[in-house]
Amino acid sequence: MQQPNFDFNITHRSKKTKARLGRLRTPHGEIETPSFIFCATKGAVKGAHIKDVKESGTQIILSNTYHMMLQPGPDLVEKMGGLHKFMGWDGPMLTDSGGYQIFSLGHGSVASEIKGNRKSSYKPTLLKINEEGAKFKSYIDGKIHFLTPERSMEIQRKLGADLIVVLDECTPFHVEKEYTAKSMEMSHRWALRSLKEFERHDDGKQALYGIIQGGVYPDLRKVSTDFVNDNPFFGHAVGGSLGASKDQMYDVVGTTMAMLDPKRPVHLLGIGGIKDIFSGVTQGIDTFDCVHPTRIARHGGALVRPGQGDTNGREHLNLRNVRFKEDDSPIDESCPCQACTTISKAYLHHLLKAKEMIALQLLTLHNITFMNRLLSAIRDGIRNDDLESVKKKWCF
Amino acid sequence: MQQPNFDFNITHRSKKTKARLGRLRTPHGEIETPSFIFCATKGAVKGAHIKDVKESGTQIILSNTYHMMLQPGPDLVEKMGGLHKFMGWDGPMLTDSGGYQIFSLGHGSVASEIKGNRKSSYKPTLLKINEEGAKFKSYIDGKIHFLTPERSMEIQRKLGADLIVVLDECTPFHVEKEYTAKSMEMSHRWALRSLKEFERHDDGKQALYGIIQGGVYPDLRKVSTDFVNDNPFFGHAVGGSLGASKDQMYDVVGTTMAMLDPKRPVHLLGIGGIKDIFSGVTQGIDTFDCVHPTRIARHGGALVRPGQGDTNGREHLNLRNVRFKEDDSPIDESCPCQACTTISKAYLHHLLKAKEMIALQLLTLHNITFMNRLLSAIRDGIRNDDLESVKKKWCF
Repeated sequence: MQQPNFDFNITHRSKKTKARLGRLRTPHGEIETPSFIFCATKGAVKGAHIKDVKESGTQIILSNTYHMMLQPGPDLVEKMGGLHKFMGWDGPMLTDSGGYQIFSLGHGSVASEIKGNRKSSYKPTLLKINEEGAKFKSYIDGKIHFLTPERSMEIQRKLGADLIVVLDECTPFHVEKEYTAKSMEMSHRWALRSLKEFERHDDGKQALYGIIQGGVYPDLRKVSTDFVNDNPFFGHAVGGSLGASKDQMYDVVGTTMAMLDPKRPVHLLGIGGIKDIFSGVTQGIDTFDCVHPTRIARHGGALVRPGQGDTNGREHLNLRNVRFKEDDSPIDESCPCQACTTISKAYLHHLLKAKEMIALQLLTLHNITFMNRLLSAIRDGIRNDDLESVKKKWCF
Repeated sequence: MQQPNFDFNITHRSKKTKARLGRLRTPHGEIETPSFIFCATKGAVKGAHIKDVKESGTQIILSNTYHMMLQPGPDLVEKMGGLHKFMGWDGPMLTDSGGYQIFSLGHGSVASEIKGNRKSSYKPTLLKINEEGAKFKSYIDGKIHFLTPERSMEIQRKLGADLIVVLDECTPFHVEKEYTAKSMEMSHRWALRSLKEFERHDDGKQALYGIIQGGVYPDLRKVSTDFVNDNPFFGHAVGGSLGASKDQMYDVVGTTMAMLDPKRPVHLLGIGGIKDIFSGVTQGIDTFDCVHPTRIARHGGALVRPGQGDTNGREHLNLRNVRFKEDDSPIDESCPCQACTTISKAYLHHLLKAKEMIALQLLTLHNITFMNRLLSAIRDGIRNDDLESVKKKWCF
């Protein structure tokens, strides 16, 4: 589905892996891929001014339809001129369909963290799911909402992101193959309804991504990749359960990518670990998103590369740790972010102890800058056909 | 007490009032007065990156000795190269003596707000006060501390601010004249001890302010102004109780200013209302400080001028109010801050409702920018001998 305002050009292919460089053009500008998409969950990147998000090298952000439909509502955002204008971001933007949060909240899982309210214990809010759509209760005011594929398209149209996504059912990790298969089939029917509704209003301002479901089952992934390949989606998103371990995730993504139309851009939903990104890129993934970089910042975590301190097996330093109390070096000497160019780990440690919110802001900017530098280094690695040495520098 | 690294030049005097323009030079640069000093209570301006504080036009900040002595402690700050380096601020800085918080906490008054923890109810923490100094309990870990004039000088030396302040007893509002007189006399003895200790270590990197006490009693204020005039302080700070009403405050400040050495810079402690600043300036005050502009930002308040919306008799808009839900105009069209140049009141209202901390950051930057623009306009007004028309534009 080539559109005048959108295209995706693959500008370089790795000789060794399926990694590729691309340029994804939208009405709000072009992004170089592989790229990381930062989460502006409720219409704001948590802890960072949009101006700083941009100055940190960010190409593209995403906002969550689920959160925006509940607060402040799509009609208000439309009235305010759309989400770009409302939040002061003039670059490319993606919105998801609302499905992920309805079902993750509905099944009572990762919801509280996503909503930035870790201490409360939320009750499952998904009331009913059938062929028509999903009925759920607002976590804000208890009001009942009904989300259908058509309604998701309507809301996403009112929000006005460049890249939008079909509504799907996001199944939990523990379900059986039979449920996964049935759910996938319904998600395909929802995708066709999403596509139809999208095309009915298509004015060239938005482009639609289809989602590949099928859980951890290769035969189901085959059905789902065939489905998206055969329908005129602008891009594809790898969704659904990717398994219980990193190795299983790499397998599932690899299997899926091997069967996907190689001309369309591919987004990997909700994945943002450094190692995971290297794995995804070599399998041909073009864009990633995850709350991880901004979320761990709010918990005192600074993303680092090997050689920048003991991470206790993780990919970040926990600056709340007392060992940073007198550490007068920056997180990363070579990082151009506001934290690394002006202050030390000791100061960040002090701010965290003193409960000063600017600690969280500074760490957020560091982690955004880190991810943008990481993806830039990855693009250089693909360009030079030497992703392995980039991986050695960035990956634990 | 002219020092090579410090001087204060009055560059213009109003023909109509005691208002004046000055240049106050410190080892970290020069400030134009009248000027507002922003509070970096715990070594950080709450809710704003130091880079943004600077870019918002800020000339000078202050940090609180009380908070820094408890966390992270003066020895650590000294080890990290002093407070300037620790927090990444290379401009002029003032520290107070620690007295205000000891006594306000001690008497169980405005403490919780200052500590950014409004909901808790703190017990008075002042354990003993005598000629030697004040014994109090840390609100962080309950540890006992003893602050003397000499110790305050030592801590402020380790913190390394340009302008430092003698230790005084800050009496509560309700005390009798007899107590006020006795307390003032002790504060004078403490000031002499502060001065002696300061001179013992004076290496030209810091300059000392004396404090005028005497409460609301003109005869006591006379004794206290004579005291500071007669001693070699670099500058003077008007402290102590200024009364129970704005009119009484203007009276007390006026009485005090009439008797003060007109050659030294004068700071008015803890005052930051717009109307109060106009009053202070016309009485010859050169610098002001107050947590108000940054504190109300964290409560959803945006400082505004007349004509920018109904403030319900205050000097700010409360953006939590539902009337801003669909207000797509910025707080102030003419304001160059990040909030006013990129987003609307409706978006700020949404962020406040959604509990996004960047709302508080954006409002903090707006209010800092506002105060710096206000003081700049005031300086223009003094320069043009037309402060009255500036007041009409900025004052409700």
